[in-house]
Amino acid sequence: MVPINLLRGRTAANYAHTGHWSKKAIAEAQRYCDVNICTDSSDNKYTDIADFKDWHINEKGAFLHYTPNETIAGLEFDYIPETEQPLVADMSSTILSREIDVSKYGVIYAGAQKNIGIAGLTIVIVREDLVGNVAAHQPILFDYATQINNDSMYNTPSTYPWYVAGRVFEWLKEQGGLSVMAKINEHKAKTLYAAIDGSDFYSNPVVERYRSWMNVPFLLANEDLNGLFLEQAAERDLITLKGHRSVGGMRASIYNAMPQKGIDTLVGFMQDFEKENG
Amino acid sequence: MVPINLLRGRTAANYAHTGHWSKKAIAEAQRYCDVNICTDSSDNKYTDIADFKDWHINEKGAFLHYTPNETIAGLEFDYIPETEQPLVADMSSTILSREIDVSKYGVIYAGAQKNIGIAGLTIVIVREDLVGNVAAHQPILFDYATQINNDSMYNTPSTYPWYVAGRVFEWLKEQGGLSVMAKINEHKAKTLYAAIDGSDFYSNPVVERYRSWMNVPFLLANEDLNGLFLEQAAERDLITLKGHRSVGGMRASIYNAMPQKGIDTLVGFMQDFEKENG
Repeated sequence: MVPINLLRGRTAANYAHTGHWSKKAIAEAQRYCDVNICTDSSDNKYTDIADFKDWHINEKGAFLHYTPNETIAGLEFDYIPETEQPLVADMSSTILSREIDVSKYGVIYAGAQKNIGIAGLTIVIVREDLVGNVAAHQPILFDYATQINNDSMYNTPSTYPWYVAGRVFEWLKEQGGLSVMAKINEHKAKTLYAAIDGSDFYSNPVVERYRSWMNVPFLLANEDLNGLFLEQAAERDLITLKGHRSVGGMRASIYNAMPQKGIDTLVGFMQDFEKENG
Repeated sequence: MVPINLLRGRTAANYAHTGHWSKKAIAEAQRYCDVNICTDSSDNKYTDIADFKDWHINEKGAFLHYTPNETIAGLEFDYIPETEQPLVADMSSTILSREIDVSKYGVIYAGAQKNIGIAGLTIVIVREDLVGNVAAHQPILFDYATQINNDSMYNTPSTYPWYVAGRVFEWLKEQGGLSVMAKINEHKAKTLYAAIDGSDFYSNPVVERYRSWMNVPFLLANEDLNGLFLEQAAERDLITLKGHRSVGGMRASIYNAMPQKGIDTLVGFMQDFEKENG
């Protein structure tokens, strides 16, 4: 929906390529405009992000799109790009993990299936002056103004996921809000990365400052043990640890719903497994 | 999604206007092509449908779109338009109410929130030769080929509504399938229309052969009693009977989930209410 609404007569846009999801956004945008890849982490296999001063921005771009957290490589921005162009963020896998300064963004969008609730809903936050500029010959449904003017009910919305999201928001408030969640999430991630870094048996290739709080991929020194690792992990109820096929190894997705206890159990298992097989 | 995929270079399409939902489809289509309104039931306040031989078809149209059942006026086709153009049907409020001959259609689409399950899912059935013709500069997500090539999982699908749909399909099979459901639904509708027609207190303006099996609107002779009717109905657990604001009065939506017993309870209440207030 982003290019349809945000090009506003311009013919180019800037996209940061830092992983799978930014790549998908780029493919979509290329249907509508000249996409300038202003930074490209595929050069470093998605283990690093260039400093913003080294990005190549097309000054005629209608907006700048980036993905604060990439789930597959576990690559996460620790800074917000500073630009005069409307800043657009796919926050699907980072929203609600900590506080964010909404005022820095033109558009924030996020699928519900990570920290918001269950799949079937996408939340969009749009700066008011960016509404109402949809291109002609594009779907009415994809016009931000349509959704706003109809209280997100132009068509029948996804009611149950919407209800679940409301319950999750209540739960987050009960926990003490996003500043508290941030501390919990930071501690969870640090525990796991410390276990990985403290061992020669496990490794994570991402530059430390860009390591994701939400998705922690790690490799076993001996890949032949991957199957055994997953099998024995499952016996301790540690599941869905298999890494994405494009990077291999393991990946622990530790969204808000994962408590510190889950991390501690995983770390305990990793240490036991290393003792037996390392 | 229909015009984007089905225009295939043509610039016109035929749309039957028989109510609220066909009107919405027309508004969307007008963004992409010249829409020929081939029949228009707004002339008769959505109480009648012209014979197909009296429709004004644009022979250069890329397809013919119609809405077999309109929920607000309770207007339902009792025939299938016979055309050489791909026939497109918004079956949201009629699918699974009876057997349909899928081979007559180019595209069938249906929101889940009536007979399929809960809101958050749309099912699309496309004739194979109509896939892969999406217009340039249109969303990848709206290309039927994208969905087919990715087993409907190009992005994260609406998982819970999808699961519920599967459970509903199992339930339908347990009931004996759609031929059995058709008999149940026909009997439910006949019971209710008979109660309406057998009284001077209630009325339904739709021509008999085009009365919907799924949505039965009816008016009270004295509109001042609408509030009292709804209040007393609610005391008998008969709820959501208020008609759409555009037609007023009452509307009983009696999808597959509504058993004959619900109809009998409603009819019993209607008769009691008439005795007291008629």
